[in-house]
Amino acid sequence: PQEIWDRLPIEVQQTIIDKGLKMYTVDATHLAHEGGLGRRINTVMQTCFFRLFEGIKYEIAVARIKEAIEHSYGRRAIEAVKRNCDVVDASIAHLHEVKIPAKPTSNHGRPKIDDAAPDFVKRVAAAITGGYGSLLPVSAFPIDGTFQTNLVKFEKRRIAVDLPIWDPALCIQCNKCAMVCPHAAIRVSACTAEALSGAPEGFQSLDYRGDEFGKGIKYLLAVSSDDCTGCTLCVEVCPGKDKANPRRKSLEMKPAEEVQAQYGQTLYDFFLSTPKPDRTQVPMNVKQVQLLEPLFEYSGACLGCGETPYIKLVTQLFGDRTVIANATGCSSIYGGGLPLAPYSTNADGRGPAWNNSLFEDNAEFGLGMRVSIDQLNTQAKSLLVGLSSTLGGVLVEELLKPVSGEAEIAAQRARVVELKRSLAGNSSLEARRLIDTADYLVPKSVWIFGGDGWAYDIGYGGLDHVIASSRNVNILVMDTEVYSNTGGQVSKATPIGASAKFAIAGQSAAKKDLGAIAMTYGHVYVAQIGFASKDAQTVRAIIDAESYDGPSLVIAYSHCIAHGYDMTKALDQHKMAVDSGHWPLYRYDPRRLHAGEKPLVVDSGVAKTPLADFMNSEPRFRVVGRDNPDRFKDLLRQAQDHSMLRDDRLRHIAGFQKPPKPAAE
Amino acid sequence: PQEIWDRLPIEVQQTIIDKGLKMYTVDATHLAHEGGLGRRINTVMQTCFFRLFEGIKYEIAVARIKEAIEHSYGRRAIEAVKRNCDVVDASIAHLHEVKIPAKPTSNHGRPKIDDAAPDFVKRVAAAITGGYGSLLPVSAFPIDGTFQTNLVKFEKRRIAVDLPIWDPALCIQCNKCAMVCPHAAIRVSACTAEALSGAPEGFQSLDYRGDEFGKGIKYLLAVSSDDCTGCTLCVEVCPGKDKANPRRKSLEMKPAEEVQAQYGQTLYDFFLSTPKPDRTQVPMNVKQVQLLEPLFEYSGACLGCGETPYIKLVTQLFGDRTVIANATGCSSIYGGGLPLAPYSTNADGRGPAWNNSLFEDNAEFGLGMRVSIDQLNTQAKSLLVGLSSTLGGVLVEELLKPVSGEAEIAAQRARVVELKRSLAGNSSLEARRLIDTADYLVPKSVWIFGGDGWAYDIGYGGLDHVIASSRNVNILVMDTEVYSNTGGQVSKATPIGASAKFAIAGQSAAKKDLGAIAMTYGHVYVAQIGFASKDAQTVRAIIDAESYDGPSLVIAYSHCIAHGYDMTKALDQHKMAVDSGHWPLYRYDPRRLHAGEKPLVVDSGVAKTPLADFMNSEPRFRVVGRDNPDRFKDLLRQAQDHSMLRDDRLRHIAGFQKPPKPAAE
Repeated sequence: PQEIWDRLPIEVQQTIIDKGLKMYTVDATHLAHEGGLGRRINTVMQTCFFRLFEGIKYEIAVARIKEAIEHSYGRRAIEAVKRNCDVVDASIAHLHEVKIPAKPTSNHGRPKIDDAAPDFVKRVAAAITGGYGSLLPVSAFPIDGTFQTNLVKFEKRRIAVDLPIWDPALCIQCNKCAMVCPHAAIRVSACTAEALSGAPEGFQSLDYRGDEFGKGIKYLLAVSSDDCTGCTLCVEVCPGKDKANPRRKSLEMKPAEEVQAQYGQTLYDFFLSTPKPDRTQVPMNVKQVQLLEPLFEYSGACLGCGETPYIKLVTQLFGDRTVIANATGCSSIYGGGLPLAPYSTNADGRGPAWNNSLFEDNAEFGLGMRVSIDQLNTQAKSLLVGLSSTLGGVLVEELLKPVSGEAEIAAQRARVVELKRSLAGNSSLEARRLIDTADYLVPKSVWIFGGDGWAYDIGYGGLDHVIASSRNVNILVMDTEVYSNTGGQVSKATPIGASAKFAIAGQSAAKKDLGAIAMTYGHVYVAQIGFASKDAQTVRAIIDAESYDGPSLVIAYSHCIAHGYDMTKALDQHKMAVDSGHWPLYRYDPRRLHAGEKPLVVDSGVAKTPLADFMNSEPRFRVVGRDNPDRFKDLLRQAQDHSMLRDDRLRHIAGFQKPPKPAAE
Repeated sequence: PQEIWDRLPIEVQQTIIDKGLKMYTVDATHLAHEGGLGRRINTVMQTCFFRLFEGIKYEIAVARIKEAIEHSYGRRAIEAVKRNCDVVDASIAHLHEVKIPAKPTSNHGRPKIDDAAPDFVKRVAAAITGGYGSLLPVSAFPIDGTFQTNLVKFEKRRIAVDLPIWDPALCIQCNKCAMVCPHAAIRVSACTAEALSGAPEGFQSLDYRGDEFGKGIKYLLAVSSDDCTGCTLCVEVCPGKDKANPRRKSLEMKPAEEVQAQYGQTLYDFFLSTPKPDRTQVPMNVKQVQLLEPLFEYSGACLGCGETPYIKLVTQLFGDRTVIANATGCSSIYGGGLPLAPYSTNADGRGPAWNNSLFEDNAEFGLGMRVSIDQLNTQAKSLLVGLSSTLGGVLVEELLKPVSGEAEIAAQRARVVELKRSLAGNSSLEARRLIDTADYLVPKSVWIFGGDGWAYDIGYGGLDHVIASSRNVNILVMDTEVYSNTGGQVSKATPIGASAKFAIAGQSAAKKDLGAIAMTYGHVYVAQIGFASKDAQTVRAIIDAESYDGPSLVIAYSHCIAHGYDMTKALDQHKMAVDSGHWPLYRYDPRRLHAGEKPLVVDSGVAKTPLADFMNSEPRFRVVGRDNPDRFKDLLRQAQDHSMLRDDRLRHIAGFQKPPKPAAE
């Protein structure tokens, strides 16, 4: 207890003394782990709360807690009940009061803000995160309401209990760790050996497997120990095993204190300083796209979040050209964690633009972004044509050509720079207007992000209206099958048999088939994806959706703490959702339809795991069975029927093809 | 001109004199008819307007009108251009000024209100329709905001120029005339010969073909000359032809003045007084259901309206048990023509309940009606069970049984009467509450009405939410493929190539397939119907939708003046929409799915008329071609592609069947 006291910053000690607070400590993480409860510390914390709370007799509270444990696990799970009850007893034994001295004793204050941080962080963000933001004058804030991005790196949470440690000897360079990381805290890259000359001690690398960047290239992997949350998904997904001892992997969790004491952030900081691979040379497949720099990092999403890997991937694939309309929900909270938002910028200082309007109008909001970007592009082109005699026909002609792919985009960017240079001395209204709009000659990638509550329910009328248009927008629905952010209400995405915190009887209606609905239009690109099941299909679908010059809808399975299990198991559960037929994977591409091919490709096989096994493995379903076994049995049967029906219908529609044109029209 | 003056009521004459108005007459109907323009009087009226309007020189206006005629019809249609120009010239020649005397000369006032009319009509409605409604105090209106129905019969419009006359000798008793009539102004019935004993002179009847009502039954047909609008659809649809002279039919149009002079309303009034067939004995097929009394009559809908026949049919089929939530649009205007609304009551004084909330929330509004009715039914049942010892077990047991079909409904109604009688002397709170709720033991039929602007666009989010529920509501979408009531804007129901008054370039996106979307749910009854193409399928689908204990969606093709052609051709155009594949007919019944049968039945054949012929036959498409022939050619090709694709997809889905259950679960 006294060590804890000594570690507190002097300002915190002063506050405790001033307010006459009592202070207690318990090593809940350790107790839960030792007691076989994994990362779940709620049993420990709850017991301690009732030990200290004077409103209810402690003995009565403990008896009730133990009854509740018995009810939760059922009479048959004797072992689990005993384990939990033992933890309850141990909690009290390990609860210690901290003696508060009369004066602060700490030899350190709150962590200092990095000197390299921008003025906004030092003056504004620090005040807000320090708890005295209400003292800031209005004039301290950006005049147009925009917030600068690329600042979250100045706010370190350092919450991991354990951190992943890389053993290069076992690494196969698959990059799956980087793919699944919800916080972009584990990263991979490739650079020349020369670029590593100043590497600090302990920095490791491998010879890069592949020749797309030339010879003698090194493969790098690094973990931000200040930003990793210790969710373990990178270790779970790692296929780099020691053949002699298959339990040993290329990534292993080690106590964070040890790791931080040895290296701090030095290895990661050096990693960040290495030159990034040239975007025009990175092959666009599941493995190499992870070498692209993510422009979404260290968000406040939950440990093991199943949504953020999709967002991170979008920013890797489309980089600083990404423009995002975000529906209200988890993704607007962790995506807009002001004052320090998690969207970041590349070495050129460019990054995604992001905004959140309302819950119900997000699709329309994103459509508006598309329309205005198209309008500015049209204006720029028109001005270009008007000024072509001044500018020279070749440059104008090149600038007016359609642009696609990273190489052409890079070339167009260079031409825009040249254009602005040519216009610099021209004071005509047209020239100045063209300087303002010239950036819109480089294509933008418009994305509309949201959860199932938005896409299936509250914003669906607008989503439908937007996909009915022929505008080139990309909609990413991160489907947790429940209103997660608002605490757990049923949405039309909630499957049969699933409970939610505010709807515990279990959903009886079948999940709305948003993908099938969108496919009725014919002109909408539609995909259903799940990164933990088939990451290659995820990457393919997102690239295809973006390249389609029309509306695209990508529905992404997102495991979530609202599903009730420990997120260290998230990848297995996610995979099981696909394997049991609960979440079929597919891609519907109108371009294939018009080419006379079958537009719908089903990417997941016929269910190989019984749906009942999947449902029984997740508490969101299981609690329904616990409270009402007969109802659950009935719902399970309905769910099986529905799943079989949906799968069969999907494969049936996949057989559809545009009929050949009749000879005479 | 002077005859017109003499026919004006004295109050109108006085107003003209008081205000110093000038008055002119022109027999526009006659001029248009003689000039070969059919019923279109706009050319005549426009010309007269500019003759009298002093803001523009008359000669210039006439020249412009003639230019516009040439532009509309094109240079090749020399005949049409000449015909119209001749009418322009004739209009001036036949425009006469009425000499206004210094004092009123009329020997009659405004038509007196029928002495039989209720007090509300005499005191309130008469004031509103007379133009001095603003003088009414608030206390004149119903205290709870409800308006009494069954009153529109007290407001006679008498607007028909010609009226249909029945020749029983040629009649085959098909009842199609009654089916297509938009205003319920032509009716059929059957009764005993005795019931006709007091018939007025000229009242005709036939021996009824059929024995469902016993022997010696007479078949009756009558037209309300005061309510018929002269739209001619009954004559158009009539298949009862004179073999010797196939142009002669059982129904023929005759000048209204002659008919009214001969019989007035006497024949129709006698028809209304005859006993109606017993609902429990009327076979529920397309022919005999027209013998059921409509409870929607004489609305203010346009001549030839393509929506009202569906509404009338619903009221015939489900009678006084019908409860309607109506979206804003044409159907809320002609359906809620206050103070005298067109919903009516049967001989028992019971009729449909109707309400209109907002444009955007109508599906939810109807769902609320369903939920509250179910709740009252549950309350009544619970009270019944509680009072069963007092009431006697047999009555209670019978009252609690499920009720379906006209015979069981009639029996249940009789039991409710008996129940109320039994409870009359019981002053307990439970008994009084049961008297209040007992009517909810008779099933209600909940309908949600609206147009395509509501269902496809503005109210779609709610419609989707309601069909996703498992509640027993019936949704009727009257699809005119355009926002008709607001003057002509494109909706998501507008097909490729169609223009609207405010979107004349022609729609380029494919029509949203609302039926296909609803079918993705699996638990929704979905039908697409068109009464002028297959009336039997229309009746079947509406009966099936209502009998399904879950959400039903019926999408009904509704020809409309917004399509731009003369509504006398509406039935042919409507039929052509189906025959060309523009409007496929189908029924998707979840009950078939669960019975292991194919749930989707396509009721229309493969297109037998080229889609181009259909599109070229309706001005809404044709004007696009006139203004931009290349664009129209392109849109026509897209429409053909899309229609073929949709038809193929539909037939493909129709092949789908629930897979047999696997042996092991």
